[in-house]
Amino acid sequence: MPRVAEGRPPALPSSPGQKDRYRRILRAAAEHGATYGFDRIQMLDIAKDAGVAIATLYRYFPSKTVLFTALLHSQVERVDRAAIEVQPGQTPADAVAQVLNYASRRLLERPLLAQAMLQSNNATVAGDSPTMAVTGAFADLILRVAGVDQPTAQDLRLVRLIEQTWYGVLTSELNNHIGADEAEEDTLLACRLLLADLGRG
Amino acid sequence: MPRVAEGRPPALPSSPGQKDRYRRILRAAAEHGATYGFDRIQMLDIAKDAGVAIATLYRYFPSKTVLFTALLHSQVERVDRAAIEVQPGQTPADAVAQVLNYASRRLLERPLLAQAMLQSNNATVAGDSPTMAVTGAFADLILRVAGVDQPTAQDLRLVRLIEQTWYGVLTSELNNHIGADEAEEDTLLACRLLLADLGRG
Repeated sequence: MPRVAEGRPPALPSSPGQKDRYRRILRAAAEHGATYGFDRIQMLDIAKDAGVAIATLYRYFPSKTVLFTALLHSQVERVDRAAIEVQPGQTPADAVAQVLNYASRRLLERPLLAQAMLQSNNATVAGDSPTMAVTGAFADLILRVAGVDQPTAQDLRLVRLIEQTWYGVLTSELNNHIGADEAEEDTLLACRLLLADLGRG
Repeated sequence: MPRVAEGRPPALPSSPGQKDRYRRILRAAAEHGATYGFDRIQMLDIAKDAGVAIATLYRYFPSKTVLFTALLHSQVERVDRAAIEVQPGQTPADAVAQVLNYASRRLLERPLLAQAMLQSNNATVAGDSPTMAVTGAFADLILRVAGVDQPTAQDLRLVRLIEQTWYGVLTSELNNHIGADEAEEDTLLACRLLLADLGRG
């Protein structure tokens, strides 16, 4: 697992210029990840393509692992904004399954990138990530789709479990242990069993 | 993700001498993994400590990823043999949770090794693994503990889901996203929700 520069907490962008550079870095990272896969990605090439100094890149993302974990979260946030139609009469669990299966299909369009992001997410030690949004972005998405406004501790625990399970199903599909249909059915079953009581205290 | 030598299917040991070398390799890999972590492990050092030629090592394990995936399976099999006492009156789901939490504690005694094995398992592409025992060893353990002799397709699906979830919980604990108590409670909850109907057709 790639090691993180010790003792240097990742910075967060605040000014418009910083946010723009931050976004350009993520975009370049996605391109490189999709083309080369995790091991062959060079941080210097990403900085070059993003038009930022290498020091800037490292200030926001002290390692490739941190960078591709942040990219996963930003892609989950983007799913959020993709305005998925939840059918009337659909249970919260089924609605969540629909969103997760949609997200899986999107992520698997670029398998090398998906692998780089999942691998990084699995290796990111607490505190290394530039945002605490790891579970944050995912939990927000799930709770919104399920219509849960005031999650209890138990709700958050259930969301954490479905997150783990979904990443596992996605990894299995990515590595050809299961097919796409099987992965979708696994995700639906996991949502129905794990989330049946979501939002009911 | 480390790449596997293409077009060379991993061999399986058959003679007693081969099995002995295979076991010595796994033992040396566990030592090196526990001490150095995945990235710093050298295949050549493992071969040296196991007392086998490097070609022998690569014949059984074409990559570090394949080697540490095989090691994970062999450690899961060993949990199996650890003869865990299932309490009378315990539900199958609770019995499985007890075994998984026991296995977690054992694996987490050597965090660098656990990380190397989980990371490898997540990156092993179907067909690369020397045995198809990936899910095999785990499924056998779970079904035995739950007392399911004739698993249906649905049972196998549930076992696959709990495997994904458990690896995810273990990874979260390993990376300090959740504490040990939380991880145990997550595993218990996941078993109760996912495995309530295990073995009931």
